[in-house]
Amino acid sequence: MEQKKVVIIGAGFGGIYAAKALAKTDAHITILDKQNHHLFQPLLYQVAAGILSAGSIATPIRAIIGKNPNTFVRMEEVIEVDRVNKVVKTRENEYPYDQLIMGTGSTYDYFGNDHWKEHTFTLKTLKDAVSLRNHIFTNIEQAFITKDPEERKKLLSFVVIGGGPTGVETAGVIAEVTEQLTREEIKADFSEINIYIIEAMDRLLGPFDPELSEYTKASLEKLGVKVKLKSMVREVSHEFVRTDNEEFNVGTIVWAAGVKAIGAPALLSDIEKQRNNRVKVNDKLQLVEDPNIFLLGDCSFCLEGERPLPGLGSVAKQQGVYLGQQLKAILKGKEFNKPFKYSDLGVMATIGRAAAVAQFGSFKFTGFFAWLVWSLVHVMLLISFRNRFWVLTSWVMTLLHGSLEARNINNKEYSLEPAPAKN
Amino acid sequence: MEQKKVVIIGAGFGGIYAAKALAKTDAHITILDKQNHHLFQPLLYQVAAGILSAGSIATPIRAIIGKNPNTFVRMEEVIEVDRVNKVVKTRENEYPYDQLIMGTGSTYDYFGNDHWKEHTFTLKTLKDAVSLRNHIFTNIEQAFITKDPEERKKLLSFVVIGGGPTGVETAGVIAEVTEQLTREEIKADFSEINIYIIEAMDRLLGPFDPELSEYTKASLEKLGVKVKLKSMVREVSHEFVRTDNEEFNVGTIVWAAGVKAIGAPALLSDIEKQRNNRVKVNDKLQLVEDPNIFLLGDCSFCLEGERPLPGLGSVAKQQGVYLGQQLKAILKGKEFNKPFKYSDLGVMATIGRAAAVAQFGSFKFTGFFAWLVWSLVHVMLLISFRNRFWVLTSWVMTLLHGSLEARNINNKEYSLEPAPAKN
Repeated sequence: MEQKKVVIIGAGFGGIYAAKALAKTDAHITILDKQNHHLFQPLLYQVAAGILSAGSIATPIRAIIGKNPNTFVRMEEVIEVDRVNKVVKTRENEYPYDQLIMGTGSTYDYFGNDHWKEHTFTLKTLKDAVSLRNHIFTNIEQAFITKDPEERKKLLSFVVIGGGPTGVETAGVIAEVTEQLTREEIKADFSEINIYIIEAMDRLLGPFDPELSEYTKASLEKLGVKVKLKSMVREVSHEFVRTDNEEFNVGTIVWAAGVKAIGAPALLSDIEKQRNNRVKVNDKLQLVEDPNIFLLGDCSFCLEGERPLPGLGSVAKQQGVYLGQQLKAILKGKEFNKPFKYSDLGVMATIGRAAAVAQFGSFKFTGFFAWLVWSLVHVMLLISFRNRFWVLTSWVMTLLHGSLEARNINNKEYSLEPAPAKN
Repeated sequence: MEQKKVVIIGAGFGGIYAAKALAKTDAHITILDKQNHHLFQPLLYQVAAGILSAGSIATPIRAIIGKNPNTFVRMEEVIEVDRVNKVVKTRENEYPYDQLIMGTGSTYDYFGNDHWKEHTFTLKTLKDAVSLRNHIFTNIEQAFITKDPEERKKLLSFVVIGGGPTGVETAGVIAEVTEQLTREEIKADFSEINIYIIEAMDRLLGPFDPELSEYTKASLEKLGVKVKLKSMVREVSHEFVRTDNEEFNVGTIVWAAGVKAIGAPALLSDIEKQRNNRVKVNDKLQLVEDPNIFLLGDCSFCLEGERPLPGLGSVAKQQGVYLGQQLKAILKGKEFNKPFKYSDLGVMATIGRAAAVAQFGSFKFTGFFAWLVWSLVHVMLLISFRNRFWVLTSWVMTLLHGSLEARNINNKEYSLEPAPAKN
């Protein structure tokens, strides 16, 4: 019997868990990803805040599954999926497949204003997080130096656009970061710090219970964050964000307002797209138009009853495990009729150092206990023992020592000679 | 009595240890550095190799001494030292001083061929190490992909120029890295790997005992490194290195051939320079021409008997501790006549995963035991508990798990749509 070929595009939660299951079969597995690492995106904001090292939430794909003799990892960008000949094409190579799994994820959506992208930071890749970290800590250091009060105010002003979990967590952590520095340098007068979070809806954390939204707003305000609800962003530039009624002059703009699927939607260009550019699959995660193609995670539109499943790591992970089982059966020539069923693990978000909101079905809770649960769940979700160990240890050290140890600015050039003086 | 002002330029070993001692006095201490972190340079090559995370060998300066109420940390580049008015000038500010400590370090010297710089990697800053890491692991991934055998050979060829400790350690670690990957991807044929180390002298590790040089050469060759002695580099380009007799077509060129002082030599432009651009100090580390200026570490030329002290972290650290004591006495108005005396801690270098050479006076040893001593000494030299913990734990994990967990390539852009195909 000829060896069956499975190609997996994307080494996010979905792709990696499917690959882990399939590594134990006789099939020839190829994993294609534009990065060389699997990344735990939910904690990127803590890398940006100097709490976690970039390395502690990323694991090389080869280190996860590279030792299986039938698994091949290739850092390549897919440019075409030829469904007729069942071949995945990259710039350099062609990978024939019997079954294809696509877990290509999502990116931030600027709702038609793509030129705002160059003025804003996002949190999707390690590069994003490290860039934001370099920027925040450079601005803070610059604020200590400048003698221009306007400039100083701008350097210490931050806007987060989008009141979902990422926006809330990012605004909260920026509040902690700036407060940390006033404790370190006792003579620093940081009363000019301004942190804004802008949300178009009438409450933060839209998908959560309204009570939790209220709690989140109050908690953020206690941390000094100014919450702007029902505020539609009309213009974003290098130096300001304008809503219908207000203008914010800021040194840092973080975009966290809505996502859209990437990768699969473009590669399957002849397939009609659903909301957020997602590609519709049936209850076995198959592309309706092609039973040899499976989609999972943020790029897939998977209905549960009337509603599509949310873009959560836990959805993608469960789908990956499920597809692993399904493809194992298919590879053995067996029938597999069990539909995918998401086991709802709830939703959570942290607010600063020691508070969070969590909601499991009708059960909801807040505060330090929610934060503890959030911490445990996130440590468990990390892919490797090493990641878990690093993250947990970093948190314990941060709690005990109270310092942002991972805030190194590492994009600075070391010039050979002193720079010329301004004339 | 007016508060005395001490300005420290450079937060390397010397500057940081002086600052730590002075933080406990009543003096007003300003630390100026172009980076926001203290960096443990001797382990940069392990960051480049994906063994250590960048964060594990860097500590924010504020986290080390930021909580002392009389200590001020400023991330600024010094552009002038006005010795007449006793003022240090940056682009934005002026810092008057009673005593000035300069520990501005060294950089790589291209011996008049500064245009080679753009083609080579070095290991002086976090940015250097992360750039080299990104480059090495991108090239290796690219080698898996390309179908052009010439291109593949180039991607898997590495030259290290300079046979001192940094060169030896870097060549050894590259050998380990590439060997690691052949173990992970069993079907990879990496017989085309070529690693060269080029040294102008007739032996590696010039300052060491010749017996250790021999051992080092043999150990590197056992790891697959080709050692080219008595080879003078004549030309360096993007794609090749040429010596008198040979040409090496390579994808990665690391420059580790000699250093020169930076910062202080240019800021003290009217002072005559010594070998390697260093600035001469007396036995109390004072600038001979100005008793209020002290220099330490790699930028200083400090004679012990006939010979200048070497550019080692342990020299800078001891000088920092010494200057802390001296300035404490001076600040109290006391006489301080004790000259600086370097307590020789020997020299060491690792060769790959579990071998090293070490020399303490006439006592010398090699192999696994030397490697253990090297490891312990380097862990102890790290500035903070957190750094020690991270580095030690990373080493133990690497030994146990045998994987390069910190090899994430984090400079890749995540493009929104699949790239257009080559035409």
